[in-house]
Amino acid sequence: MDPRIREHAAVIVDWSARIEPGDRVLMQVDEGSIPLGIAVAEEVATREASLVTTFGSGEIERAYLKHFPTTDFPVDPEHHLALLEQSDVFLRLRGGTNTSAMADVPTELQQAASIATSGIREARMATDWVSTIHPTPSLAQQASMATEEYRDFAYEAILYDWEALAEEMAQLKNRLDEGETVRIETETTELTMQIDGCTAVNSAASVAYDSHNLPSGEVFTAPYGTEGTVTFDIPMTINSKPVRDVRLEFEDGVVVDATAAEGLDVIEGVLETDAGAKRLGELGIGMNRAIDRYTNNILFDEKMGGTFHLALGRAYDSCLPEGETGNKSAVHVDLLANFGEGSTMTIDDEVVQSDGRFVWET
Amino acid sequence: MDPRIREHAAVIVDWSARIEPGDRVLMQVDEGSIPLGIAVAEEVATREASLVTTFGSGEIERAYLKHFPTTDFPVDPEHHLALLEQSDVFLRLRGGTNTSAMADVPTELQQAASIATSGIREARMATDWVSTIHPTPSLAQQASMATEEYRDFAYEAILYDWEALAEEMAQLKNRLDEGETVRIETETTELTMQIDGCTAVNSAASVAYDSHNLPSGEVFTAPYGTEGTVTFDIPMTINSKPVRDVRLEFEDGVVVDATAAEGLDVIEGVLETDAGAKRLGELGIGMNRAIDRYTNNILFDEKMGGTFHLALGRAYDSCLPEGETGNKSAVHVDLLANFGEGSTMTIDDEVVQSDGRFVWET
Repeated sequence: MDPRIREHAAVIVDWSARIEPGDRVLMQVDEGSIPLGIAVAEEVATREASLVTTFGSGEIERAYLKHFPTTDFPVDPEHHLALLEQSDVFLRLRGGTNTSAMADVPTELQQAASIATSGIREARMATDWVSTIHPTPSLAQQASMATEEYRDFAYEAILYDWEALAEEMAQLKNRLDEGETVRIETETTELTMQIDGCTAVNSAASVAYDSHNLPSGEVFTAPYGTEGTVTFDIPMTINSKPVRDVRLEFEDGVVVDATAAEGLDVIEGVLETDAGAKRLGELGIGMNRAIDRYTNNILFDEKMGGTFHLALGRAYDSCLPEGETGNKSAVHVDLLANFGEGSTMTIDDEVVQSDGRFVWET
Repeated sequence: MDPRIREHAAVIVDWSARIEPGDRVLMQVDEGSIPLGIAVAEEVATREASLVTTFGSGEIERAYLKHFPTTDFPVDPEHHLALLEQSDVFLRLRGGTNTSAMADVPTELQQAASIATSGIREARMATDWVSTIHPTPSLAQQASMATEEYRDFAYEAILYDWEALAEEMAQLKNRLDEGETVRIETETTELTMQIDGCTAVNSAASVAYDSHNLPSGEVFTAPYGTEGTVTFDIPMTINSKPVRDVRLEFEDGVVVDATAAEGLDVIEGVLETDAGAKRLGELGIGMNRAIDRYTNNILFDEKMGGTFHLALGRAYDSCLPEGETGNKSAVHVDLLANFGEGSTMTIDDEVVQSDGRFVWET
């Protein structure tokens, strides 16, 4: 076994999920992530926690959804709900054999199934959950990388010095928490956002930081009152379609114009979802320097060092003052951009980043 | 997809498990049985039942058992127990990649884990459960057969005319239910067993027949007062060790002498387990004519047409009069023998089988 698989498992169990003796652990493996599942089982056992393993196959889900005779899917089946409700920890080890395994399942079927199982999803989110990937040939293919090359890339991002990064990110979090206005200027962007009263999340890949993705490495908050224009120069796949060089113009927090080099219809579809889809739900700053390229996987891309992302739609509760709901929407669609040469990010007119490097970086 | 995989799935769902709309189905796949899992998901969806899929990997179980620091395994973890208790149907789709995946896990560890999860096992047995195999290269290897050859063999046994076999087996069941004494004579066996008051099970691969294996095809009862000698001329693997030509001598229901061409120590170990291990818990008659050879897999071997098997140890409740416990033991070890040329099986001195053919067979 590649020794990095065991190191990954130890990071999942100790740093990310903080598993303790007696914890009831639920682990979900894919067909391609079984080696990681084996290594995690070793770590879970060592900590004297209990373990149930479910199978998260896109092929099985597709078979079920496509053959169900109606869209009246069973509502929160009791056995599934009970499993989640009785679990302390949920570990999602992604890594199928085909990232397009569900490509021919109509969106309305997927949505109907998702609505029918919202209670199960809530129960899952109430656990100490962690989502990670095992670097499979299928994920390498999605990134247009050789499998070994992708493995090296993924483990650099996953086996990070999380304690050091958490400390560095705390500096940005503190400035965002204390600040009122963020301004980003790049070659193609001039954007001002209000953040007064919002709480930034130090997303350090651990439930202890309210951060549930491994790898992580971003600081994000919930901006409002956005003014100006932004161009997203990092390509994306949204609803299975390529989207490139989206440019959005904001007035008083609302998108008033949108253009794109490719996929404008996708963006327009997103914007028309509901009123909240025309407003921002998130400003995120990527700070994982091991993620040094785009790999067509949002779990990695949005954490890329030297980039920022904005999400149209729903804001996360963790960024909002107690009791406030922030921007509401059925969608949360991330769009990514590079800072790059000549860029600056300022908080209340104080420069925190220029040319893609933070002021505290050497 | 091999069309027989979908036929197999339909037999599991309709004939064996009798799945109905709204049933909560729990399916357990192995690494090698995923194609069957996909086909079963289609059938479960078609019947508007709900589905949870767990992963039954010997590799993951081994990793967990070998790394747990003590033998104080978690007792019936609540999330696992709740999952089983809330399930109506449990489908076990066996088919790993290595039938020896647990070979280096000490027996005492496996036993301790088994004892710790006895509540989960009881909850599983309380469902409409079905155990079957997907014909994998690993199972073909265990049978010393080519993979395609094994697939053909397995599907002949699984895609049987179960209704016709159930009717044929009912004839034997009725004779055993009405009879008092069974006698088997072969070239190497002269054995008399009492069955008065016992109920035979028509094991027709369906929960409707209290039969949980697919394939099945045996009629079995719980004999007592055994007298005579029996030689088991079909090789077996017991506790991972080969056993050949075991010969047992019975007096007043108890084994008084045992010899073997190979593996006598294994048999002696079984006999010494407890008082019940020296008595019979089962007499079974194999009646699946598609199972025409030994394949080193008890799920198939004990159903082989023209064979009988006796189990040392525990009797099944379903064979006993209401409230009676029958023979008790921690073990239930099957031993197999051919009827063959010149053999007879009589019930109350009436011949029901000779030369390995039943009197009602042409």
